[in-house]
Amino acid sequence: MSVSGMKKQLHKASQLLSERLMGAEGTKLDDDFLQMEKRVAVIQILLVELLSKTTEFLQPNPAYRAKLSMLNTMSRIRGQGKLLGYPQTEGTLGECMAHYGQELGHTSEFGGALANAGEALQEVAQARDALDVNVKRTFIDPLQDLHNTEMKEIRYQLKKVNGRRLDFDYKRRRKGKVPVEDVRQALDKFMSSKELAERSMFILLQNDVDQLSHVASLVNTLLDFHRNAHRILLGLHSNLQARLTAASNKPERRFRPRKIQVRRNTTAALDFTTSRQSHPQESSSQCYRPDPAAPSPVILTVNWSWISPVAGRSTPSTRTTRAS
Amino acid sequence: MSVSGMKKQLHKASQLLSERLMGAEGTKLDDDFLQMEKRVAVIQILLVELLSKTTEFLQPNPAYRAKLSMLNTMSRIRGQGKLLGYPQTEGTLGECMAHYGQELGHTSEFGGALANAGEALQEVAQARDALDVNVKRTFIDPLQDLHNTEMKEIRYQLKKVNGRRLDFDYKRRRKGKVPVEDVRQALDKFMSSKELAERSMFILLQNDVDQLSHVASLVNTLLDFHRNAHRILLGLHSNLQARLTAASNKPERRFRPRKIQVRRNTTAALDFTTSRQSHPQESSSQCYRPDPAAPSPVILTVNWSWISPVAGRSTPSTRTTRAS
Repeated sequence: MSVSGMKKQLHKASQLLSERLMGAEGTKLDDDFLQMEKRVAVIQILLVELLSKTTEFLQPNPAYRAKLSMLNTMSRIRGQGKLLGYPQTEGTLGECMAHYGQELGHTSEFGGALANAGEALQEVAQARDALDVNVKRTFIDPLQDLHNTEMKEIRYQLKKVNGRRLDFDYKRRRKGKVPVEDVRQALDKFMSSKELAERSMFILLQNDVDQLSHVASLVNTLLDFHRNAHRILLGLHSNLQARLTAASNKPERRFRPRKIQVRRNTTAALDFTTSRQSHPQESSSQCYRPDPAAPSPVILTVNWSWISPVAGRSTPSTRTTRAS
Repeated sequence: MSVSGMKKQLHKASQLLSERLMGAEGTKLDDDFLQMEKRVAVIQILLVELLSKTTEFLQPNPAYRAKLSMLNTMSRIRGQGKLLGYPQTEGTLGECMAHYGQELGHTSEFGGALANAGEALQEVAQARDALDVNVKRTFIDPLQDLHNTEMKEIRYQLKKVNGRRLDFDYKRRRKGKVPVEDVRQALDKFMSSKELAERSMFILLQNDVDQLSHVASLVNTLLDFHRNAHRILLGLHSNLQARLTAASNKPERRFRPRKIQVRRNTTAALDFTTSRQSHPQESSSQCYRPDPAAPSPVILTVNWSWISPVAGRSTPSTRTTRAS
């Protein structure tokens, strides 16, 4: 910094001190200017708040958010074009449902319903991804841009106005020592920077219909998302209702154990064959063969089966036992 | 544990070891049983996953979730009936918008739009609260209950079956040393517990239409939420469109600085009066009075004002200067 510049800074500092401590009255700006300054300050804070809250609204889990931005930065550094998307909660829930729905199989009503619901929720997650992208494009980016360029410029200009005001007031207070021409020059500088700042603030506040349009487009994208989600879930809903009616019309199967026969023989088989087994030879694989050295054992042939009223057979759960 | 109980445990352990290490073949259960066991195991894991994922879907921020549950537990301990709700992201964004919308004031288009959007989003947050409550009531609680009672019972029964199977197989392997009657008793116990477990599993799998109905009610509540959100945002959308059209029809105001007059006089006033100032006496409060000891200073009377084409007045930005 040059010597004159340093002197200027000292002058401003001394003026500020004398205003703050000795209560010296500095030049006051007109109400219009002060009012505009206040509203600009509000917009300043508002933008910061609004951007962070909107991001949180789109990507509510801070851990995922941080991880995602980290990964995307890395992939950008590596020059990989493809960027990752935020893991939407509908998506994770949908995947879980679809996965276990398939594991249970479509013979199970629960499994079928889960599979359908899972697919639908994954579609909703895609709709939310679209919301994410569109809100960023039509709301976050423009407001971020406003904050980074126009607002920044105005902040700088207001700082300049205040600096020149201090310089002018300092010289004004030292009228005797400072030549009149300097005071006039200081005022001119002060005035010109004030006009510049006033002009920028006026333009910002005049064009607030632009910000209004950003809010409108945010609402549009939200509206689209909820419309799509509603459409997707409506299809799923009718599907599940059909499943429910079909399931309620199914005849109920009841559980009945078959009687157990206990008898002596030499085939030595403990056999759990059931009437529903398709491959009888499998059942033989389920036998145990005692070592022949052992004395002729008690042989238990146990037959277990499902009797459904549809099949018409319904044997009482009796049990006969003969053993030596 | 009694001595006989300890002996039994040892027998089971030795049987398990000989099956695992020496590859001794234990009694195999029928395919139906094994199949049911497998599906029950799937449902077991599925319930745990589904419940956690659904909770994450409703309350995506783990930090808020933890804080909320902690606070609610404390209020329950204190016997305060009222429980806190999860801070919905729509709600926080809505509050932010409403707050700054009011600060900007309804004269600003941006402020008005933010205020409206804020209110609407807070309504959406209320709809989400309702979703939260209903999903808990109709989906999470019933499945949690199923997991805590029926599934727990089945887990216990299957454990019992395995234990008795091991006991039976142990005795079977020692036919020579163990009396036949004991083997038969062991089998009877094994059979009875197997039948019990089989019955419970059968009932669970038979009634999977109940779980289907829970999924259906989850989808219903989701559908309601999106329907409500869509309705609320549709109202907001039309409101903002009206604002946009009104704003675009407004005549544009242009910024013009008034000429600055610099002249000598003795009233010693640096005065920023503007044509829009309502209280002229206020402007006098914006004057600075130099100490009379100082020599007659340069007095700068600066007038600043807004000229809008609507008002019809349009003075060019000229500037005259007279100073000694």
